[in-house]
Amino acid sequence: MVDFVSVSNILNLVRDIGPEPFLKGLAGAMEDSYRRWQSFEKVARIGSHTRDGVIELMPTSDGQTYGFKCVNCHPVNTASGLQTVVAFGVLSDVATGYPVLVSEMTVLTALRTAAMSAMAARHLARPDSTTMAIIGSGAQCEFQALAFRAVLGINRLRLYDIDARATEKARANLVPLGFEVTTAPSAEAAVAGADIVTTVTADKQFATILSDNMIGAGVHLNAVGGDCPGKTELAPPLLHRANIFVEYPEQTRVEGEIQQLAPDHPVTELWQVITGAAAGRRGPQDVTLFDSVGFAVEDFTALTYLHDLARGTGYAEDIELLPDPADPRDLFGLLGKARPDRNPRAA
Amino acid sequence: MVDFVSVSNILNLVRDIGPEPFLKGLAGAMEDSYRRWQSFEKVARIGSHTRDGVIELMPTSDGQTYGFKCVNCHPVNTASGLQTVVAFGVLSDVATGYPVLVSEMTVLTALRTAAMSAMAARHLARPDSTTMAIIGSGAQCEFQALAFRAVLGINRLRLYDIDARATEKARANLVPLGFEVTTAPSAEAAVAGADIVTTVTADKQFATILSDNMIGAGVHLNAVGGDCPGKTELAPPLLHRANIFVEYPEQTRVEGEIQQLAPDHPVTELWQVITGAAAGRRGPQDVTLFDSVGFAVEDFTALTYLHDLARGTGYAEDIELLPDPADPRDLFGLLGKARPDRNPRAA
Repeated sequence: MVDFVSVSNILNLVRDIGPEPFLKGLAGAMEDSYRRWQSFEKVARIGSHTRDGVIELMPTSDGQTYGFKCVNCHPVNTASGLQTVVAFGVLSDVATGYPVLVSEMTVLTALRTAAMSAMAARHLARPDSTTMAIIGSGAQCEFQALAFRAVLGINRLRLYDIDARATEKARANLVPLGFEVTTAPSAEAAVAGADIVTTVTADKQFATILSDNMIGAGVHLNAVGGDCPGKTELAPPLLHRANIFVEYPEQTRVEGEIQQLAPDHPVTELWQVITGAAAGRRGPQDVTLFDSVGFAVEDFTALTYLHDLARGTGYAEDIELLPDPADPRDLFGLLGKARPDRNPRAA
Repeated sequence: MVDFVSVSNILNLVRDIGPEPFLKGLAGAMEDSYRRWQSFEKVARIGSHTRDGVIELMPTSDGQTYGFKCVNCHPVNTASGLQTVVAFGVLSDVATGYPVLVSEMTVLTALRTAAMSAMAARHLARPDSTTMAIIGSGAQCEFQALAFRAVLGINRLRLYDIDARATEKARANLVPLGFEVTTAPSAEAAVAGADIVTTVTADKQFATILSDNMIGAGVHLNAVGGDCPGKTELAPPLLHRANIFVEYPEQTRVEGEIQQLAPDHPVTELWQVITGAAAGRRGPQDVTLFDSVGFAVEDFTALTYLHDLARGTGYAEDIELLPDPADPRDLFGLLGKARPDRNPRAA
C-alpha cells in the first residue's frame, strides 16, 4: 500500500507537533539537503502554460528516493474564491520505482517556503536582527512570520498589503500568537527600521514593491513573491546594490528577480554558503538578497520530512494505488479474481 | 474534493462493463484523440534513470484538461515478486490548475496499450486478418488478445515465451474466454501463418525477437516491447522492409525500434493516417509496423475515458487532496480552525 497524507492529517500533524517546532525541524532538514546539494538530480521545472496560469511538475532524486511536486499558479483563482496555488506531491523508491507516499502539498508548500526563507536568512541576515517587514499579507504571510520566529527569534513584524483587509486578516492571526505587530499604511512605512524585509506579493507582472531608496544598509531581503517569468518585485537598482544568493541559477535566472539583470550577473549559490565553499554576508552594511523561487529539492525535503513524521501513524492513510498480483506477470489474472460471476466471458 | 480511482475500483469497473466493451470504447477514444492530435501539447517524457530502471513523468494538455502519468520500468523487479511497471495518473482542470482525478494506472496502462495497438492495427493490418501471434506472455499478453478481438474480431492466437510457464499462464487465462490458442515451441513456429505479429517482451537490452526471414509479405507487426533506449525487439533488415508508423517521431526515434535506423529514415505519423493526411497500408503485400512506445496523449485519453465512466459513481472515491479555506488568502487560518485547544500558542 501507498501512504496518503490528506489536508486534514497534515493540519493535525502540524498542530500536534506545533507549527514552530515543525518549521524549525523542516528548516534543519532543508539545511541538511543543501549541505548534500551535489547528491540531487536537478532539472528545471516542466511547465504547461496558458493565459491564466501554469501547471508545473518539479521532480528530483537523491539516488535513493525520487520525488516530485505538481503545482499550479493561477492568480485569477482568488476572484472566484479559489486559491492561487494548490499542490500535491509524491515520493517513490528508486530501487523498485514503486510510489511510497502521496501527499497534499498546498499547506506543505507554504510551510516549506517559509522554512526555506528562514534557513537562508539564518545564514545571510545580520545576527542581531529583531524586526521583519512583510509586504504582502496573503496565504504565505503568517507562515513566514512563524518560521522566522522559530529559526531566528524574530518577534516584531511590520505588515503591509495593498488590500487593508488582507493585512487585518494577518494581524488577527498573528497577534494571538504573541507577535508584536505593526500595520503600516504603505510599503515605505512598513520597511522603515526593519532588519529583514520579506516580499510575498502575488501579482503576475513586473511590479516594483521595493525601490532602491527604501532599503538601508545591512538589510536582508527575502524575495519570495517573484517566482515566474515576468513576475518580479524588486527594482533593478536595488538588485545592483545587493549581494545576491539563489537556489539553482539555471532556474532563478528565468524565474527570479535576477531575470531583470544580465545573464552573467554574479550570484552565489546558497548551498555553497552552507557548505562553507562561498562567503555569505560580507559585513553589517551588506544588503543581502535571497532571490527565492522554490526548487524541487525543497519539495523533496519537505515530503521526506513529512513522511518520516507520518509513516506508521494515524496521520498516514493507506490508499490502494498499486496492484499486487501473486504472479507479477499475471496482471490480467486480477480481473478474474474477485466477482468471477460478473465476468461476462468466463467459461 | 478530488476523485480517486483505486486498483479495486478500476478492476470492478472493467469487470462490470466487460473487458472487451471497455477496450473497444477506449480504442474509439484513442482514435478521437489521434484525430485531434494537433490540439495536444507534446513534450518528450521526463525520465530519472538509474542502473536498474527509470521513473518517468509523461505530461500533456489539450488546453481544457491537463494530465500526466508517473510510471517506472524496473525489469529487475520480477525477481523479487514485484511488477516491472507500475503507474498512476492525474488529471487537472486547466482553467483553475486544480487536480480533479488521481487514478491507479498499472491496470489502466495495460488496457490503454492494448487498445492503442488494436486501434492502430485496425488502420494498418489487412482487413482479412484472423490470426495473431503474440511473442511474450507477460503482463500485457492477455490485454492485447482481448483488444484485438474487441476491435478487429481476431480470435485465433499463437503464443510463445522463452519461459513456458508464462505461456501456460496466458493460455490458461485465454482459453476460458473462448480464444483458439496454439502454444508454440519457438518464436519462428508462433509467427508461422499469423496475419498480425505482436511482440511484447520485457528484456532491457537489444534483442532480436523477430528476424527478417520470419516475417512474410502482408503481415502487420505490432512492436510493443521495445520502448526505451537500448531496448528493441526487431532485426534491422526487417525494419528496412517495413512500412513504419509511429506515435511521436521525436520520442520514437530515441525509444522505439527505429532507434536502430538512421535518424532520417522515413516514418509516417499515425495521426496522419487517421485524419487521411497520409496513406496507411500500401496493399496486401505490404509489411506494416506500428513501432509503439506509448505516448502521453494515450495516457491522457485513458484517464479522461476512465473519469467519464467513474465520475459520480461508486467507482470514484473522494480524497482530501486540496484545502478549501473560506478565504483563499487565509490558508494559515485552517491551522487554527479545528482542535483549537491543541494549538500550543493560541491565546
